Amino acid sequence: MCRWLTYCGEPIYLDKVLFEPRNSLISQSLRARHSHVTTNGDGFGIGWYSDRPVPGVYRDILPAWNDQNLKSLSHQIRSGLFLAHVRASTGTATSRANCHPFAHGKWLFMHNGQIGGYERVRRRLETMIDDQYYSHRVGTTDSELIFYLLFSQGLDRDPVGAMMRTIGKIEMATREAEVDAPTKFTAVLTDGAMVYAVRHSTDQAPPTLFHLRRDNHFMVVSEPLDDDDDCQAWREVPAGQMLAIERCGRLEMVPFLPAC
Amino acid sequence: MCRWLTYCGEPIYLDKVLFEPRNSLISQSLRARHSHVTTNGDGFGIGWYSDRPVPGVYRDILPAWNDQNLKSLSHQIRSGLFLAHVRASTGTATSRANCHPFAHGKWLFMHNGQIGGYERVRRRLETMIDDQYYSHRVGTTDSELIFYLLFSQGLDRDPVGAMMRTIGKIEMATREAEVDAPTKFTAVLTDGAMVYAVRHSTDQAPPTLFHLRRDNHFMVVSEPLDDDDDCQAWREVPAGQMLAIERCGRLEMVPFLPAC
Amino acid sequence: MCRWLTYCGEPIYLDKVLFEPRNSLISQSLRARHSHVTTNGDGFGIGWYSDRPVPGVYRDILPAWNDQNLKSLSHQIRSGLFLAHVRASTGTATSRANCHPFAHGKWLFMHNGQIGGYERVRRRLETMIDDQYYSHRVGTTDSELIFYLLFSQGLDRDPVGAMMRTIGKIEMATREAEVDAPTKFTAVLTDGAMVYAVRHSTDQAPPTLFHLRRDNHFMVVSEPLDDDDDCQAWREVPAGQMLAIERCGRLEMVPFLPAC
Amino acid sequence: MCRWLTYCGEPIYLDKVLFEPRNSLISQSLRARHSHVTTNGDGFGIGWYSDRPVPGVYRDILPAWNDQNLKSLSHQIRSGLFLAHVRASTGTATSRANCHPFAHGKWLFMHNGQIGGYERVRRRLETMIDDQYYSHRVGTTDSELIFYLLFSQGLDRDPVGAMMRTIGKIEMATREAEVDAPTKFTAVLTDGAMVYAVRHSTDQAPPTLFHLRRDNHFMVVSEPLDDDDDCQAWREVPAGQMLAIERCGRLEMVPFLPAC
Repeated sequence: MCRWLTYCGEPIYLDKVLFEPRNSLISQSLRARHSHVTTNGDGFGIGWYSDRPVPGVYRDILPAWNDQNLKSLSHQIRSGLFLAHVRASTGTATSRANCHPFAHGKWLFMHNGQIGGYERVRRRLETMIDDQYYSHRVGTTDSELIFYLLFSQGLDRDPVGAMMRTIGKIEMATREAEVDAPTKFTAVLTDGAMVYAVRHSTDQAPPTLFHLRRDNHFMVVSEPLDDDDDCQAWREVPAGQMLAIERCGRLEMVPFLPAC
Repeated sequence: MCRWLTYCGEPIYLDKVLFEPRNSLISQSLRARHSHVTTNGDGFGIGWYSDRPVPGVYRDILPAWNDQNLKSLSHQIRSGLFLAHVRASTGTATSRANCHPFAHGKWLFMHNGQIGGYERVRRRLETMIDDQYYSHRVGTTDSELIFYLLFSQGLDRDPVGAMMRTIGKIEMATREAEVDAPTKFTAVLTDGAMVYAVRHSTDQAPPTLFHLRRDNHFMVVSEPLDDDDDCQAWREVPAGQMLAIERCGRLEMVPFLPAC
Repeated sequence: MCRWLTYCGEPIYLDKVLFEPRNSLISQSLRARHSHVTTNGDGFGIGWYSDRPVPGVYRDILPAWNDQNLKSLSHQIRSGLFLAHVRASTGTATSRANCHPFAHGKWLFMHNGQIGGYERVRRRLETMIDDQYYSHRVGTTDSELIFYLLFSQGLDRDPVGAMMRTIGKIEMATREAEVDAPTKFTAVLTDGAMVYAVRHSTDQAPPTLFHLRRDNHFMVVSEPLDDDDDCQAWREVPAGQMLAIERCGRLEMVPFLPAC
Repeated sequence: MCRWLTYCGEPIYLDKVLFEPRNSLISQSLRARHSHVTTNGDGFGIGWYSDRPVPGVYRDILPAWNDQNLKSLSHQIRSGLFLAHVRASTGTATSRANCHPFAHGKWLFMHNGQIGGYERVRRRLETMIDDQYYSHRVGTTDSELIFYLLFSQGLDRDPVGAMMRTIGKIEMATREAEVDAPTKFTAVLTDGAMVYAVRHSTDQAPPTLFHLRRDNHFMVVSEPLDDDDDCQAWREVPAGQMLAIERCGRLEMVPFLPAC
């Protein structure tokens, strides 16, 4: 299982949340407490919005805990909306192209989970990616595949519908291929204005998802960042739900219903 | 254009040909003389046969000229049949998965050239890869695509036919997509017993291919390795021809005719 | 020989000068025109000042021309004072710790040249580094050694004097070790307020150094960035001279005289 | 704490012990059971003797568990004496130059432990390295420093004495610098004929060291490789002891006494 966070609110330097909390994302990359997978050392990535029309992305295949560039960049870069991800591979290769977040145009996406029986449905799902997006697929992960399916399902016009249709089509494909393994989709998607965070699985064990609201920011994470007192502040997102967060601060929780 | 060599003959340590000649492959990776592309710094790879049923592969994304591992490995590894490749990317990402040679089972493959209009025919050609091989595609290059098409065209039973059918199908796909850019296929393929080296292009400018026969070995290269007197010993393979070399030393040159 | 540039003036996005000019630094990293060394593929680095007390640094050992992170970062980061460097190793290893620019506190430093007979005087010069700085030496290059000698010679109080004393001591050490090879010091040093650019060598061939003044910025480079008409705008800094540039725009040229 | 193994006996393919046992070195790199440090993801290395006068070395900064090159190389390389090491950094940078084993001439060395108060005695100890070896120091770790001190203390003539004198001098330096932190030296040193394995510390907690004798080989490891029944076969080396193992199979255990 991968570990990640999304910050949305008053602009801050990234190291404020990536390195400073006791159970920070970087500490989590060394030892995750709520997870079966011991170590998240298979690469990492950050994505952030500043003044440019497109977000910035920095990804590398070293363990995050030892990357001097990440330390310096997160000390310099200030952003009001950013994502960070540390990866524990579920089988695909360690390469920059396989690290999250994925970026295309104004969109950023990161994913914790899997397409059940990926190798048996990969081709079929890849044929559903529109030609104009297919050439942007440079890696081999199921996560990147989902990202380009979103575009092909109308992400720019209707992001929530695109997510529900994409997961619906994936689940149909795995059912038809008689795959037993569950499809899990705990994910964050953003265009720089809205943040969508989903916790969904075809079984009873979707990867965890928590959120926290402070005066001047929201955070959405795979696992709470603080150790003690603050723990009460984190709210677990129930399975089958989606958060939709506006940058102005409005948050809505709605059911996430894959479309047939 | 990439640079490469194949050695077949009496077992030698790899550094004997990778590092020692004046115009060695490693020197070529710094400055190629017969090529428009200045520098081959986008990764490298070696593949070799020793006592195991499958060949060994070492690939990395650093420039070959500065890799201490390559120096030590090529000083230790002795082989009677090995390939080495330095890469100058024609657009796809620098990752280990995109470095040559490609290996699957007993086969090694490396390629200098391109599928004309790759992005316009990539999907169509990928659908021609048999299911059993598709999950082994971990990179995004046209070269790896060709490699798995070879398997799908019967590589194990009929390697020469598989190459001719594969290139024929690629050329048909590019014609139907009305691609102008030429398809170039200067390549080496081996199963550890036979070495096939092809020089082919749909235009008049296939990448160069040379071979040399000594008492105890053959070499096939993209560019001659020696500077002065030895130059006469290298023979250029004409466009449209294929060498078939047995490890015992028998060499045959035959026309390479893509099959419709 | 390495290639580099320094920009000082109205804040701009880094890609404006790193990627856009025809003979941009990234193009130069592929093929340098004024240099004997063919290729600058042994790592690169950028350093920049934004709102933090210390500058940011991003360095990596891949060739700069193929680094997607560098593309994205230089598209996002805006700065009124930044340095960029592409490295062609003169013998020391390719590691991030050996890439320029070097950073310590508020200072950034990059260097094109060498300490003559480095291996014969390295120890002696290392003993001249103050204890408090020695533990910050994490690489093995002569350039990093010079950087920490500068601190030990009073960089914070008197940067110009520290440079002259440092080079003076280096030249004395090489003379006493009867080294024949010249010491070359074409370098840029800045604390975020002043930029010092030196062109010096003990022989008649110091690495080139050019500067250009526009309405709203200065640039100091190892080799002019534009191909044609703009070439006249670049002024070569004579051997033995030093530029001192204030961020407000005042530029002074003074002789660089190593102190005995 | 780092994890490592040494194999000495009938030549085998390296993957036989690196990848196959249930608690293999590669599994250990993901989760170490006898150690406080969670994860060994800061690089790895292998060193082996074959037919060449000098051993081969392959080191990289990726986590070992995800390195395809390591998988292929350890499947191909067969050796009767080899070392493997996975690194958990104790503070110095992740670079190939800092990965174990270290090689010079016919010698290989790997180390688990630390020089107490390293930063306070580093310079003083570096001045004890003979000039002829100092230029070979390309990293910054205490382990590499110890390696070159061994040469300066007569490694080639008297390896056991060189180890005892080196550790003695280190302990004297830390005492004089009034360092509180202990110096720990659990290490393996070999010239390809003899293997020396030491377990020593200035406090009561030297890193663990185990050995195992089978019909046709010895192994010396930081932590037993097998999970269940085989556990009885492993013998813990007591603190303050050194194993001296001949390739013919003779093993001797003697006290390790740092020399003043």
